[in-house]
Amino acid sequence: MSIREANEKALGIINRARPTLIGLDRAGEVLEGLTPKTILHAGPPFPRGWVDMSGPVRGAVIGALLYEGWVSSQEEGEELAASGSINFAPCHHYGAAGPMAGIISPSMPVWIVENKEGGNRTFSTINEGLGRVLRFGAYQEGVIRHLRWIEEGLFPLLQETLEKMGEIDLKEITAQALQMGDECHNRNRAATSLLIRKLAPHIMRVSPGREEGARVLEFMDSNDHFYLNLSMAACKATLDPILGLKECTLVATMARNGTDFGIRVAGLGHRWFTAPAEIIDGLFFPGYSQDDANPDLGDSVISETAGIGGFAMAASPAIVQFVGGSAGEATHYTESMYEITVGESDSYLIPILDFRGTPTGIDVRRVVETGLLPVINTGIAHKKAGIGQIGAGLVRPPLDCFQQALRALVEKYRP
Amino acid sequence: MSIREANEKALGIINRARPTLIGLDRAGEVLEGLTPKTILHAGPPFPRGWVDMSGPVRGAVIGALLYEGWVSSQEEGEELAASGSINFAPCHHYGAAGPMAGIISPSMPVWIVENKEGGNRTFSTINEGLGRVLRFGAYQEGVIRHLRWIEEGLFPLLQETLEKMGEIDLKEITAQALQMGDECHNRNRAATSLLIRKLAPHIMRVSPGREEGARVLEFMDSNDHFYLNLSMAACKATLDPILGLKECTLVATMARNGTDFGIRVAGLGHRWFTAPAEIIDGLFFPGYSQDDANPDLGDSVISETAGIGGFAMAASPAIVQFVGGSAGEATHYTESMYEITVGESDSYLIPILDFRGTPTGIDVRRVVETGLLPVINTGIAHKKAGIGQIGAGLVRPPLDCFQQALRALVEKYRP
Repeated sequence: MSIREANEKALGIINRARPTLIGLDRAGEVLEGLTPKTILHAGPPFPRGWVDMSGPVRGAVIGALLYEGWVSSQEEGEELAASGSINFAPCHHYGAAGPMAGIISPSMPVWIVENKEGGNRTFSTINEGLGRVLRFGAYQEGVIRHLRWIEEGLFPLLQETLEKMGEIDLKEITAQALQMGDECHNRNRAATSLLIRKLAPHIMRVSPGREEGARVLEFMDSNDHFYLNLSMAACKATLDPILGLKECTLVATMARNGTDFGIRVAGLGHRWFTAPAEIIDGLFFPGYSQDDANPDLGDSVISETAGIGGFAMAASPAIVQFVGGSAGEATHYTESMYEITVGESDSYLIPILDFRGTPTGIDVRRVVETGLLPVINTGIAHKKAGIGQIGAGLVRPPLDCFQQALRALVEKYRP
Repeated sequence: MSIREANEKALGIINRARPTLIGLDRAGEVLEGLTPKTILHAGPPFPRGWVDMSGPVRGAVIGALLYEGWVSSQEEGEELAASGSINFAPCHHYGAAGPMAGIISPSMPVWIVENKEGGNRTFSTINEGLGRVLRFGAYQEGVIRHLRWIEEGLFPLLQETLEKMGEIDLKEITAQALQMGDECHNRNRAATSLLIRKLAPHIMRVSPGREEGARVLEFMDSNDHFYLNLSMAACKATLDPILGLKECTLVATMARNGTDFGIRVAGLGHRWFTAPAEIIDGLFFPGYSQDDANPDLGDSVISETAGIGGFAMAASPAIVQFVGGSAGEATHYTESMYEITVGESDSYLIPILDFRGTPTGIDVRRVVETGLLPVINTGIAHKKAGIGQIGAGLVRPPLDCFQQALRALVEKYRP
């Protein structure tokens, strides 16, 4: 197969994907091979584990150790994490995608998403909401208590709701949300609203009492990013089937662990190409500045890899209030991404571009040739553990990842 | 006061308005002066009552007479309606606004909207949903049964929900929805979603049993126009305070009864200026064409009068799939409306125009000078009673209404 044929095949796989929410379960039950002392994190691997982790990832790891009851204090957490007895591994190695620090520990409930075209499954945690939350490195008592409520209050109710109501087509929700001002990475208000509308009647039917269901509905309403984790699992479910496709030069994964940015390329399988993560150019919450910012973090860039997020900014002019810039720039970002992609989505359409499909299928060759890097919408974490989100903005991956990948493609296929 | 000062004052009144949903009640309880045998309809008055009414309005009148139990068959309904013993009057004369035929009879529950700036109140029925519904002139048994459920199932539950949860700021919902692809006349998906999110936890808390609340939530989810009637009452609450403002040349009301288009101008008080309603240029549902279309109908054009709907089409490029045209045309419609308005909304902002406020305050003088008529997004009813909606599209009011009004302004203020 030629590169061109391989890339066309990959584009077809991406366009035919049907990511569908099929249920929830505990990570330890459904993530294959998760050993009892495993902690998953966002991005590529940390070669030296704890030593390589930035502040917010360390904070989130400590939070997960406290949540699991493996330690009972921050100090104990740091000691255990540094001891070498915890198996740290990327979410992506276990079929999952995690926003920001992306920490998944065995007791955490996860959404289960199945790509109905092919049957591959992916997983993501339930989004915790805004403010001080584990994914931004916060681990105070309130953060752990909230995770406990997610496990004991939210999870069983959502699990039963989905069992009763059946599967939910995530591609349809994302497609609708792109007609409603979301780009489904940093803006998920419409998608979250559409999901709540679907779930609400069924939550009403299965809730053990009025108050439990009301609290679940209030929590979802309070969190416009509730859909983000579902969208991420859907994007991963869409892209995973191209990983390993011979001759294919499309990016199958992009992810950041807060220290490094990593990409995986379809034709090169599970091999990561990494370089130091960049600092984000964005808008900061009052009292914070660029000096406080951690480098780029999280698996949420799977959105852009699948052709939404920064690639769909033209659909989401309102997002410039959150990440900076003008509506015209938002449109320009999308338009420029057609230069580095091999095709267009046939489901994710942008009204203002007269329903043109979002730029889809990032070709490593075009990125290196043009020097034009994927544009990413993202949140900004404080660089210290325990503080949380301090802003949002735009970032690009390091060019070096793509250059390395291109060299490896040449070595493998045209030595 | 000069015309210029009067118009600026009116723009200030419009911009400071705070339309707020405060509750629900039966029309007969809250619409002042509604006599026992009154039927309200959309648009300006019918000088000769029943004789002047088009098919869908007649159908909806028959439906209301059946619903109220004043007659027990279509034939009896036609007879009573033609007898002269029913008081037919515009919704606008009783503080209400009704979509399409706009029929309100005393037993129907209505939303109560209060403009917190000034305290004026407006009313609208609960949107019945899509398909064969009273507002499009359908009056079959199923239509009446559904109205009965609205009265007996939906209304008491929503009433109690609002009593428990308190008031809802409609200006905020509309403003948000304009950032989410709605123009809040023919596209209300985002606004409906935002409303459902707010209501759901409280519906859960007050529902007598699981199934009643679940059915209410399912009904709202099934109807993307659920917010339309609230938006209309909010627009009317926003505009009513300018009616009667001396020297003011701004349009305070536009409305159609399916036979005539009518406008009222702030400086000329309650006087209507009417001309035959136009035929709508639009997209038709399969099996229907322009030949089946009733002329322009309904009070929903209060949306455009308040600066949303067709005036906010740039915020809603996806609507062109429903009403025809391209995204570029949608933007152009909004841009052209700045030529006939005296200002911009300071709350209803359009992301793609870099958050410019929607064109607000239609100046009769500018309409006549430029010949540029307000652009209206609207639904299309079948011209025969009992069939329902057959499409959606764009329409303009007859220029004659504006010419008459301008002459009257000159006669009154510059004789």
